[in-house]
Amino acid sequence: MHLTIVKEELLKGLSTAYRAIPSKSPNPVLTCFKLEMTGRGLEITASNGDTTIRTLVPLSLGNVKIIRNNSAGAILTNAHIITELVRKMDSAEIDIEVLDGYVAKISDDRSTYMLNCIEPDQYPDIELSEAPGAFDIATKSLTDLVKQTAFAAAIKSARPVLTAINLKAEGGTLTATTTDAARLSRKFVSIDPSVAFVANIPAKTMSDIVNMLEGYEKARMSYGREKLLLRFGNTTVASSLLSGEYPISDKVIPTTFNFHLEANASELVSAIERVAVLNPDGAPVVKLSMSPAGVEVSTRSDQSGSGVERLRTVQYTGQRLEITFNANFVNQAISALKGTDVLISFVGEMRPFVIRNPQDDSVVELVTPVRSR
Amino acid sequence: MHLTIVKEELLKGLSTAYRAIPSKSPNPVLTCFKLEMTGRGLEITASNGDTTIRTLVPLSLGNVKIIRNNSAGAILTNAHIITELVRKMDSAEIDIEVLDGYVAKISDDRSTYMLNCIEPDQYPDIELSEAPGAFDIATKSLTDLVKQTAFAAAIKSARPVLTAINLKAEGGTLTATTTDAARLSRKFVSIDPSVAFVANIPAKTMSDIVNMLEGYEKARMSYGREKLLLRFGNTTVASSLLSGEYPISDKVIPTTFNFHLEANASELVSAIERVAVLNPDGAPVVKLSMSPAGVEVSTRSDQSGSGVERLRTVQYTGQRLEITFNANFVNQAISALKGTDVLISFVGEMRPFVIRNPQDDSVVELVTPVRSR
Repeated sequence: MHLTIVKEELLKGLSTAYRAIPSKSPNPVLTCFKLEMTGRGLEITASNGDTTIRTLVPLSLGNVKIIRNNSAGAILTNAHIITELVRKMDSAEIDIEVLDGYVAKISDDRSTYMLNCIEPDQYPDIELSEAPGAFDIATKSLTDLVKQTAFAAAIKSARPVLTAINLKAEGGTLTATTTDAARLSRKFVSIDPSVAFVANIPAKTMSDIVNMLEGYEKARMSYGREKLLLRFGNTTVASSLLSGEYPISDKVIPTTFNFHLEANASELVSAIERVAVLNPDGAPVVKLSMSPAGVEVSTRSDQSGSGVERLRTVQYTGQRLEITFNANFVNQAISALKGTDVLISFVGEMRPFVIRNPQDDSVVELVTPVRSR
Repeated sequence: MHLTIVKEELLKGLSTAYRAIPSKSPNPVLTCFKLEMTGRGLEITASNGDTTIRTLVPLSLGNVKIIRNNSAGAILTNAHIITELVRKMDSAEIDIEVLDGYVAKISDDRSTYMLNCIEPDQYPDIELSEAPGAFDIATKSLTDLVKQTAFAAAIKSARPVLTAINLKAEGGTLTATTTDAARLSRKFVSIDPSVAFVANIPAKTMSDIVNMLEGYEKARMSYGREKLLLRFGNTTVASSLLSGEYPISDKVIPTTFNFHLEANASELVSAIERVAVLNPDGAPVVKLSMSPAGVEVSTRSDQSGSGVERLRTVQYTGQRLEITFNANFVNQAISALKGTDVLISFVGEMRPFVIRNPQDDSVVELVTPVRSR
């Protein structure tokens, strides 16, 4: 295997694949990239067992030659070392040559590195070809879908499926749902009506993936062989799925309410943030006191003291109501809605309440109150 | 105690003093600010036991009234909570009133906070008045003195005095020395010839202090009562000293050499950084191989492989010489010199070598080689 490659393009490819390299792994093979020179270009593969990224640095981009002097072959090389070396090398082109005994010679006109490598057969066999039923999705839709819901998934849970985003494609709609059992977030976008599947993808993985989509307009998604696959530009990302029945039915979101609060989103978020300062440790518990006479956010801590915020830009319909909740849950939900105004609808004191953006029906957030002290 | 104060000036004062608040302390008093309303303004004091900061928010700045409605008094209040509250409040003025039972009422036209406080007598008595022999020093000189030496102090040591910057004022020169026993850094600046003292100040504290000096041209330093005091603008900082004899005599720095290498500083630093990539764990050991025919930086790791960098912009005088050293020590030393070129002078293979900026005699760095493998 041999190639001379434009440094910036090599670094882009290495940096893209590096996102799937685990910070540490008992399996040294997974701390490596698989580099494979093929007829299409240099293929770089990385996998942490759950997420796999494969990206291609092509032979040329438009009229610009990216790779020259190439001969086919493959090698496994430590991902951290080759990425940092290439990042720090300052020549326009870098030469990579695999020598006998699985040594990769990385060089330019002033530097020569001999990197100990692993033979390529040691790498797990990872199938990344598109499954039947693949469909195109606008990256903006996919990014909104993930960013407006991922925060409400559990970080850790005795039920691992709660760490997932539940994706359901049906009747022209792709719906994402997350819940950590105390709150729920749901968002839908339109897709090709012929697509139908249900899959639970780790929320952390989906967040990492959408961070890679910047600069691409469309991605191609397919679901099959126990994986979700996403292809954009010269890169394919595969995520393993979480098994288990996703616990949420549509009935959990109430549809009739007795109380409605409409507020300026940033005023409400700021007021909640300020009173939350009095609970510097643990989950900040905050009380919303609403009546036709006015709306207040307050907190009381035995150690720190108490605080009250009067809201100005509010409209409240209903009888007097007090609701106590985790400040972070409500503020994350309001922020995810991305609206100027926020509409919160309540059934009663200890019943889950619904937070919506009055300008956007595609997303709904549900939060369960906590007991007032 | 009562005052109405311009929010931005209060926040500046709180943020300045906050730098001395420990992230946690078994003594709740030290997690508090002492706020004291005096005839001069609002005095804010913070201390972690070793470093004390006292800053004054004055009654007015030029013609602008900063504090109004004030009556004297003092209180101890949780530093984190009041700083975060004031940061997040968005009115132009904030009212602070101490109520019976050591409660501070912090309010503006929409927010009211009642903070549980501690009675002011609980605060340690900290004397911060200027000692005899105080002198003015340009903040740029003091910042250079600290930033060009602090990195070579020990982080932790069985000999705590090695975590200090040794400051020696004598004959019109203030000299800073640091050493962790494997390397040494020394820098001098000119001061008032009548000043004479020797003090060991924790390097970490001195680094924190010089970070506060931005925007001030001069500071006033004094040494006495087991403390170093520094005053700039409306702020006074006191650092406790480290006891113990500082172990370095002037004789440790060699003055006659057999080998000299002059190199472009950034080229040498980059080459060392690249070969150091092959030792991702622990102290990266790098070899400099010099002869009249050329100069190379190299490394060899059983696990990762090997690398060689040929330097271009070098001038070497002397016989063939190989020196092995901790890459971080040499790169930190070269960076601290802030020169375009760097001059490294050697006595012999296992003898400490001296790194200098050929354009700046005021600073010298010394590094002990390690045994080559």
